[in-house]
Amino acid sequence: MPVATAADPAFETRLAAAADHVEAALAALLSGDPAAGETARPERLIAAMRHGVLAGGKRLRPFLVIESAALFGLAPEAAVRAAAALELVHCYSLVHDDLPAMDDDDVRRGRPTVHKAYDEASAILAGDALLTLAFDVMASPETHADPAVRAELVVMLARAAGVGGMAGGQVLDLTAEGRFADGRPLSLADAEIRRLQAMKTGALIRFACEAGAVLGRAPGDRRAALAAYGETVGLAFQIADDLIDVEGDAAEAGKATGKDAARGKGTLVSLNGTTWARDELTRLVSDAEAKLAAFGERAGVLAAAARFVAFRTA
Amino acid sequence: MPVATAADPAFETRLAAAADHVEAALAALLSGDPAAGETARPERLIAAMRHGVLAGGKRLRPFLVIESAALFGLAPEAAVRAAAALELVHCYSLVHDDLPAMDDDDVRRGRPTVHKAYDEASAILAGDALLTLAFDVMASPETHADPAVRAELVVMLARAAGVGGMAGGQVLDLTAEGRFADGRPLSLADAEIRRLQAMKTGALIRFACEAGAVLGRAPGDRRAALAAYGETVGLAFQIADDLIDVEGDAAEAGKATGKDAARGKGTLVSLNGTTWARDELTRLVSDAEAKLAAFGERAGVLAAAARFVAFRTA
Repeated sequence: MPVATAADPAFETRLAAAADHVEAALAALLSGDPAAGETARPERLIAAMRHGVLAGGKRLRPFLVIESAALFGLAPEAAVRAAAALELVHCYSLVHDDLPAMDDDDVRRGRPTVHKAYDEASAILAGDALLTLAFDVMASPETHADPAVRAELVVMLARAAGVGGMAGGQVLDLTAEGRFADGRPLSLADAEIRRLQAMKTGALIRFACEAGAVLGRAPGDRRAALAAYGETVGLAFQIADDLIDVEGDAAEAGKATGKDAARGKGTLVSLNGTTWARDELTRLVSDAEAKLAAFGERAGVLAAAARFVAFRTA
Repeated sequence: MPVATAADPAFETRLAAAADHVEAALAALLSGDPAAGETARPERLIAAMRHGVLAGGKRLRPFLVIESAALFGLAPEAAVRAAAALELVHCYSLVHDDLPAMDDDDVRRGRPTVHKAYDEASAILAGDALLTLAFDVMASPETHADPAVRAELVVMLARAAGVGGMAGGQVLDLTAEGRFADGRPLSLADAEIRRLQAMKTGALIRFACEAGAVLGRAPGDRRAALAAYGETVGLAFQIADDLIDVEGDAAEAGKATGKDAARGKGTLVSLNGTTWARDELTRLVSDAEAKLAAFGERAGVLAAAARFVAFRTA
């Protein structure tokens, strides 16, 4: 069984180049100057938003948008705004998930979380404003020439992020941990954990891959293939994350590890063991590659992305 | 000087009919069944969202969307989804503003606020999911046949609600009250209060009126007239609100009164006095009517709406 754990320098160069591109787009979107239709951008709020977004990071989701769109001939410039909109949603979710009433984390990517650097009210409002800005960016004419594409991406992103996607997944997660005022921890079965994770982390990763197809006006079968690839990568992402929490080093991960066990949190790794998890990741990588078969060698970057996601250590 | 303080039964019947229409649309949007592209809607989250939205209320902003669109021949059915999307944004903002870290209110419309009925985490996530759903609803094909109209409405709504609009206005308000961890109360000048209120409450009301014009593909001058009308009504709304806080009865208002003074909060009413405020409201109503002049008698409902907003007691 091939296990690609070695670093892939060509892939990592490409990932870093996309991250630079996205970082520049995000910095421009989070400027202090009001856009048309805005009155003013209060300094405290835009600073808190920037703190929550411009902290580096791999920018994996934007990368998947850009590389999926590239399969249909789109240059990174033609996908970077949709990619940035998605990253704004991801970052808002981190800002809110870190709040004391939720996961209560003080450190994120080695820096104080937004509510530690500012305060809770600022973090709530910064998250709200980032989520709102994401839809502004996605729907604006600069994102795609065809308004039907932009409107479709808004609907897709909202459903991936909302009550039936990421936000709903966070509620299932807090419920399972018994963290609501009236709750007790639950032991979830394998299928329940998979559904929770498909919503909480899988939906945005799937969106990233499908969005590239929508931007590139892909035929239905290619779009479905990328969505299926994204689902597989999303599951691999979560299992790798849970494995890092069990086995990883806090300094390398840039955040506290061992949190899941400390919270009595059931994951596929705690349920099935680390040996199963490593085998499952290898299987998921093969599965992701199979989903890309119709694209031939042009999908080599996305295949490398699946390996990267599955076998990363941070 | 004409002062229209008497009730206007024809107007109130029309307002109530629109509210019923919007209430039904909101209830359908907040169903427990997942939409296409959603995995599942967790019961706890959808219940908290419904608690935050389906509590009655005047539904003033949706009414303004429906009546502005009616000037261009649109039936209420053709405007009700955009109206409901706007109301979802308004309701999310109330859920988050009521949180302990923000305005710390336990009662809203005579019922416990979402974080009192559930808990803080549920209220944060319910607000997030309502905001997200608003953009789903606005961008979906059922809202308008033309995707360019839907995409434009998404951008307009996001800018009215985000860092340069409502969310930014809430930050300015919390700053003025000295409620951030590192802050002290500020005495704002008249122009600073006006800017704060134009962002915090004015932007969504202006959006309501302009959205009707966009739905109705209005010529630019008519759209500008409705936006200007909306700005005037937004200012009148806030002054009336501040006056109710000074003079109103808590039972009738459905919420605590006297809060602004208790917080040392500067409003145009505390700065200029109640006599000035009543004169200003009369002037703003005339101004709003003048903005509607080009529409002739068909704009009678919107003129009545301006009087209603300015002279309400709850």
